[in-house]
Amino acid sequence: MDKTLIISKKVKLKDPILIEGLPGIGLVGKLAADHMIKELKCEKIAEIYSPHFPHQVLMLRKGIMRMLKNKVYVCRSKKKGGSDVIILVGDVQAVTPEAQYELCGALLDYFEKLGGKRIYTLGGYGTGHMVDKPRVFGSATHMDLIPGMKKYGILFGEVGGSIIGAAGLLLGLGKLRGMKGVCLMGETHGGYVDAKSAQAVLDVLGKILDVKMDLAKLELRAKESEKFMKRMEKETAKQKELQEGGGSAGGELSYIR
Amino acid sequence: MDKTLIISKKVKLKDPILIEGLPGIGLVGKLAADHMIKELKCEKIAEIYSPHFPHQVLMLRKGIMRMLKNKVYVCRSKKKGGSDVIILVGDVQAVTPEAQYELCGALLDYFEKLGGKRIYTLGGYGTGHMVDKPRVFGSATHMDLIPGMKKYGILFGEVGGSIIGAAGLLLGLGKLRGMKGVCLMGETHGGYVDAKSAQAVLDVLGKILDVKMDLAKLELRAKESEKFMKRMEKETAKQKELQEGGGSAGGELSYIR
Amino acid sequence: MDKTLIISKKVKLKDPILIEGLPGIGLVGKLAADHMIKELKCEKIAEIYSPHFPHQVLMLRKGIMRMLKNKVYVCRSKKKGGSDVIILVGDVQAVTPEAQYELCGALLDYFEKLGGKRIYTLGGYGTGHMVDKPRVFGSATHMDLIPGMKKYGILFGEVGGSIIGAAGLLLGLGKLRGMKGVCLMGETHGGYVDAKSAQAVLDVLGKILDVKMDLAKLELRAKESEKFMKRMEKETAKQKELQEGGGSAGGELSYIR
Amino acid sequence: MDKTLIISKKVKLKDPILIEGLPGIGLVGKLAADHMIKELKCEKIAEIYSPHFPHQVLMLRKGIMRMLKNKVYVCRSKKKGGSDVIILVGDVQAVTPEAQYELCGALLDYFEKLGGKRIYTLGGYGTGHMVDKPRVFGSATHMDLIPGMKKYGILFGEVGGSIIGAAGLLLGLGKLRGMKGVCLMGETHGGYVDAKSAQAVLDVLGKILDVKMDLAKLELRAKESEKFMKRMEKETAKQKELQEGGGSAGGELSYIR
Repeated sequence: MDKTLIISKKVKLKDPILIEGLPGIGLVGKLAADHMIKELKCEKIAEIYSPHFPHQVLMLRKGIMRMLKNKVYVCRSKKKGGSDVIILVGDVQAVTPEAQYELCGALLDYFEKLGGKRIYTLGGYGTGHMVDKPRVFGSATHMDLIPGMKKYGILFGEVGGSIIGAAGLLLGLGKLRGMKGVCLMGETHGGYVDAKSAQAVLDVLGKILDVKMDLAKLELRAKESEKFMKRMEKETAKQKELQEGGGSAGGELSYIR
Repeated sequence: MDKTLIISKKVKLKDPILIEGLPGIGLVGKLAADHMIKELKCEKIAEIYSPHFPHQVLMLRKGIMRMLKNKVYVCRSKKKGGSDVIILVGDVQAVTPEAQYELCGALLDYFEKLGGKRIYTLGGYGTGHMVDKPRVFGSATHMDLIPGMKKYGILFGEVGGSIIGAAGLLLGLGKLRGMKGVCLMGETHGGYVDAKSAQAVLDVLGKILDVKMDLAKLELRAKESEKFMKRMEKETAKQKELQEGGGSAGGELSYIR
Repeated sequence: MDKTLIISKKVKLKDPILIEGLPGIGLVGKLAADHMIKELKCEKIAEIYSPHFPHQVLMLRKGIMRMLKNKVYVCRSKKKGGSDVIILVGDVQAVTPEAQYELCGALLDYFEKLGGKRIYTLGGYGTGHMVDKPRVFGSATHMDLIPGMKKYGILFGEVGGSIIGAAGLLLGLGKLRGMKGVCLMGETHGGYVDAKSAQAVLDVLGKILDVKMDLAKLELRAKESEKFMKRMEKETAKQKELQEGGGSAGGELSYIR
Repeated sequence: MDKTLIISKKVKLKDPILIEGLPGIGLVGKLAADHMIKELKCEKIAEIYSPHFPHQVLMLRKGIMRMLKNKVYVCRSKKKGGSDVIILVGDVQAVTPEAQYELCGALLDYFEKLGGKRIYTLGGYGTGHMVDKPRVFGSATHMDLIPGMKKYGILFGEVGGSIIGAAGLLLGLGKLRGMKGVCLMGETHGGYVDAKSAQAVLDVLGKILDVKMDLAKLELRAKESEKFMKRMEKETAKQKELQEGGGSAGGELSYIR
């Protein structure tokens, strides 16, 4: 397996909009997207496996294992002429440039085949400060999207820096294919999992998509997510240690001293 | 040579079952699989070379050299309607995600062509503790395998974490191809080569496969394996040093100071 | 996206000459090339995206984002029988051998299709010293180019060492395709952005190409370039930190402690 | 450029024997092979460029530059029925497993097309000790080669460990294609360039090939080689520094602080 593999159901979607919420700063994007999937009872339509994900499987409590993956869910519009929403979530992101470009390219191929043209990526914007009411910053692929977005209270041009990972690259590479979109970043400290920031992002996203979601349970879910991601972090650190300890071969041998 | 190369004999097998025992924690899987091959006098049917293995050859005592490799052995069933068993062993595992995905993909292609559908991977589960009677933990690809396995005393759902390397990935990727299997992990300290844990795993595996093996010589063989793997570890460390010392070129030049 | 992507306008050029000015020592080459593009009001004819560039997008002040890229500009000759000049500039260079060879190969494919045969690459030659009047050192692909170049005051054979990155590789790989060229290196300290050295290089280049440029504003532009490149440096450092902190997966998770 | 590129003259050779002498421990193999080429006035028949070599060009004294490369020379047999000898030398070796496997595979493809079946690789065997009369150790691909080699005083089975790089891999991978060969290793300290060890290797090789060479000038040439390789080492270290300093992009920016 040399390339990202997308195993998908055959679906027919109406003018789908892509929402991305993979792990990132403060887990803001992931919390928001995972919550949305549960609140709107979305249906899973694709699983994504990649040679750029850690080479390990997770042991689950019930005695079975599962691979690390990304997933795509669909939430079909109930309105006439409304757009279906597909949501990308997952355990991990690729971390090298080559890996991210390959993975995002594969995801955009998939989205393009579904007929999609609009993308919203979700994330956190780390400030090192704690705030009571996190603001939502935006960065768009095209100028003409900004006025419409400002109506929802999203702030444009207020912060600088770069957007690292899929939240940036899906939009950047998507633009090269004629897609348009916005990255929505919840203001966050950056040093802890931030449910409040995810709520702020989801509040705005709900308005954009004209979808109602109960945000009450988000904080509760954030606790579970934090627990899971800490476990993930521990396991991938273990793998990295083996990798570096053992040179180009037999890393695990470093267990025999 | 850009891809894993499998040089194999033409064989016709009956419903083959794959056993994996590559180097890993406590060398538990490797000891068990190597012992099985010798006890059952299995026949070698394939050699596996990979650009992800260290770029070096081992000098043998008798004056010749050999490449680092993995090997596949077959142990044909003597029972009518019984399954043949093929066993994957070797000097090393690949250590980066991309390398492991490529290698496991190539191995599964090979196994699929042989008509295989069932996989058992062997390994150690490191606890940091020493025990008298090592337990055997299991993690399955599918829930329906667990009841049958519990009969042999394998414990499911008792331990968490992840399974790193081929022991996990062969099952994870195999499942995507419709294969089923279990990872059998012998309880082990994790800091030394553990023949006793390998015996526990092999005891259980023998029952699953309905095969009798004398486990007496396993401890003796463990000593030899430990010696060999320590040598391997030393050589790959040497290679790594050259690699890092010399930048992208002429690492070995660092010998001239 | 696995390979460098060049999105280009259809243009017909007369015997085009390639000038390269990507970021490097003292930003000498970048300052010179960027200045030339502005002074001569060159037209952009291609954008270059690469999986070897950082996996991030830059947030711009006006609320939009853009990918990291290289660009090609054309400056058409106003003289009869004169050569058109195309200029390669950009935010970043690839940094691994494999990445640089792939990227330079793609650029040369593009240049070859445009009918180009002559290349000048621009850069700085770091000495650790500050000088009032920076000299311009040259290194050519072919001996027969040197006498003509010496007339412009370029010094050949006075300095040793190697030319790292696109400034060297475009010429080295170009030569294998029958192209000829010279690397022009402005003498520079190496520890800061050096507008004066860029002026010296541009002065010589203007004579070679028989083009007049006002060099007065170069110093002013150098300040902006320095600011931009410091920002780039900060952002890519951030990415690298995530990459190393997080192992092969979920680097950004290290934000949750 | 994604793969190793071999630019070769069309030649017709009689049963060619391949000698490898790339940079390695004590530069023993490189000194021996370079000396042989000069003494026997061999003719260059191929140049080898690789994306796994450092991404830089060397500035030469006379004002021109050249890429880093490997080269193949031929020394035609003057005896009736004798074998032609082709000699592989060069500036650098690739240093990662994937790079070495790709490069050695490309070299063996080339050698196979020339009709070659026999390989001798030259290197040093580092002991950490200085000796007056360096011994020559051998390691063969096949047992049946050893008796013939022992006649020349080559010692088999006396030393252990591994052979890292092309000296090992060309033989290991060559064997998979039905080729046979021996690695000849001169006993050396390992901490300095060792002309005496190279002489010992060349003395033995001359007997194997039935070729006479004057070894007097070898020591003189060793000085030049040492100087060149120290320069190479310095330049590749510089490149590595840039690479690591600058993350995945714009490494050279670290020059602007």
